Amino acid sequence: MTATINQQILLASRPDGEPTVDNFRLVETPLAELEDGQVRVRHHYLSLDPYMRGRMNEGRSYAQPQPLGEVMIGGTVGEVVASRHASFAVGDAVVGMGGWQLYQTVDARQRGALQKVDTTQIPLSAYLGAVGMPGVTAWYGLTQIIAPQAGETVVVSAASGAVGGAVGQLAKARGARVVGLAGGPEKCAYVSGELGFDACIDYRQHPDLKSLSAALKAACPNGIDGHFENVGGLILDAVMLRANAFSRIAFCGMIAGYNGEPIPMQNPSLILVNRMKLQGFIVTEHTALWPQALKELGAAVASGRLKYRESIAEGLAGAPQAFLGLLKGRNFGKQLVKLV
Amino acid sequence: MTATINQQILLASRPDGEPTVDNFRLVETPLAELEDGQVRVRHHYLSLDPYMRGRMNEGRSYAQPQPLGEVMIGGTVGEVVASRHASFAVGDAVVGMGGWQLYQTVDARQRGALQKVDTTQIPLSAYLGAVGMPGVTAWYGLTQIIAPQAGETVVVSAASGAVGGAVGQLAKARGARVVGLAGGPEKCAYVSGELGFDACIDYRQHPDLKSLSAALKAACPNGIDGHFENVGGLILDAVMLRANAFSRIAFCGMIAGYNGEPIPMQNPSLILVNRMKLQGFIVTEHTALWPQALKELGAAVASGRLKYRESIAEGLAGAPQAFLGLLKGRNFGKQLVKLV
Repeated sequence: MTATINQQILLASRPDGEPTVDNFRLVETPLAELEDGQVRVRHHYLSLDPYMRGRMNEGRSYAQPQPLGEVMIGGTVGEVVASRHASFAVGDAVVGMGGWQLYQTVDARQRGALQKVDTTQIPLSAYLGAVGMPGVTAWYGLTQIIAPQAGETVVVSAASGAVGGAVGQLAKARGARVVGLAGGPEKCAYVSGELGFDACIDYRQHPDLKSLSAALKAACPNGIDGHFENVGGLILDAVMLRANAFSRIAFCGMIAGYNGEPIPMQNPSLILVNRMKLQGFIVTEHTALWPQALKELGAAVASGRLKYRESIAEGLAGAPQAFLGLLKGRNFGKQLVKLV
Repeated sequence: MTATINQQILLASRPDGEPTVDNFRLVETPLAELEDGQVRVRHHYLSLDPYMRGRMNEGRSYAQPQPLGEVMIGGTVGEVVASRHASFAVGDAVVGMGGWQLYQTVDARQRGALQKVDTTQIPLSAYLGAVGMPGVTAWYGLTQIIAPQAGETVVVSAASGAVGGAVGQLAKARGARVVGLAGGPEKCAYVSGELGFDACIDYRQHPDLKSLSAALKAACPNGIDGHFENVGGLILDAVMLRANAFSRIAFCGMIAGYNGEPIPMQNPSLILVNRMKLQGFIVTEHTALWPQALKELGAAVASGRLKYRESIAEGLAGAPQAFLGLLKGRNFGKQLVKLV
């Protein structure tokens, strides 16, 4: 029995401030016969990531806006259920950018559109997390921008998330002292316990600059040499107050300011005072380094050295709510939607 | 006839907000007999530079605070008038960090304390400007941080100053389109006329972000790839609004915020959106590159390719007033005090 109906979630409208479920619409669409070179993938997991929030806005962001009325973009893993391309057979496990839908029909002749993956040592879902885009994001920002020396102190915001958790563990493996920032005692216990960070600060206990800066001072007695920024706003300001000479900040996400006016940086003269380097990046622009990153990440996951958690929502219809929860920090580790 | 009395200007008190002449004090002190290894230099020119403002404050800045009751720090050029060191003879032209005083007595065995210079093709005063610390500052920020490609657009604030003027001319020599920012029509005419910048914006005509950003858009039709920041505040915000993907900002000075509270950066998320690199530097921390820089700068000045102007105040007693004028942008090019 071949399925003939697909389900998809479209971006129905752009958010005015905080997004809601009304910005999304679930539709059913027929699945056409495959053409030559095409492959059909049944999605097992759909990845939800903070960058998608930026794409919901109309304005210029670090990516093209998501077009209205089209399937929400997103990474996916699944299995080939039909193929008219010689390199892909029914049953193959694949990773791609299939978006928020049950089935993806893709021209497999497009280089990089679909990648076969090995699930003997690495779970399929990990290719959306620690051995996928979030893992490579962590690897790139840490190794190419922060480049920590052994003994240096590295701080990571959103430390219990898919990216932040990997940043800290990769930094630990390089001999750095690693301090996380996460929301709530449960996440902090996970970060400093299971993930092995040297310390984790519950930023909810420090709602102002003075308090958060004092907490960072206590957790980073030798100052901060590197910071991986997933959040921005108050956290960025507090970290800069504790930054050492020649410190580096990798700008990966600024989710604190996604819903409204930009949040100013309070004291940019610290960039000069401390001879800092601040650098933004988008991991998809550095494809040449992906194989090197995935090799390290895959080996670390397969051996159990690189740990991660997943928050799994069930069913496509639950994707919008799970995504909104992710933006509020309700997830614990990598946020996925399980479709099979 | 050997002089026996020195005149010195001390930092008498720290400024509360804007500095005044009352923060300085002129004193006379006896000149002692030289000891073994010492050299006495009669200063011909004293350099006044914006970085001195930062050192007048008590708080942590990019340099140690200037101690109260001591001679104001500063670069100097002059001639040896007495020597008990084999490498220096009376009449030698030398550059050093002699400070705000008529005579410097220095232990010439300290490596780098005093440097002999050749004045056959390069005027003595130029060793405090285009072929000195300001020139190397321009060279370092431009070549090591901005690293412009031919055809890219580079913006420079304080463009008529000793550093800014050199930045623009070095960038032009590398094939960049160069746009300056300066205060007033006379300075702008100099920058775009004599110094050969492609355009110069009189920032006094654009007192708000919208207006300055529009002026930058008009002068930089292809956006901004590199920016050399001497000022900060509104100028930094306006430049960031026009910054291209992968643009670089070298933080050399943030003089806009020296007298009070830090001036926030309005939209730091642009660092991520445009994958920018922002980097602060202090040229004295990169001594290994000085010979390479000075070689290029010296050749360019000797051949007349690198142009500069000097604002010259007469007499040591006039140094404080000239320095305050520099902070208000009243100088035109390199600010010097002529002592001989």
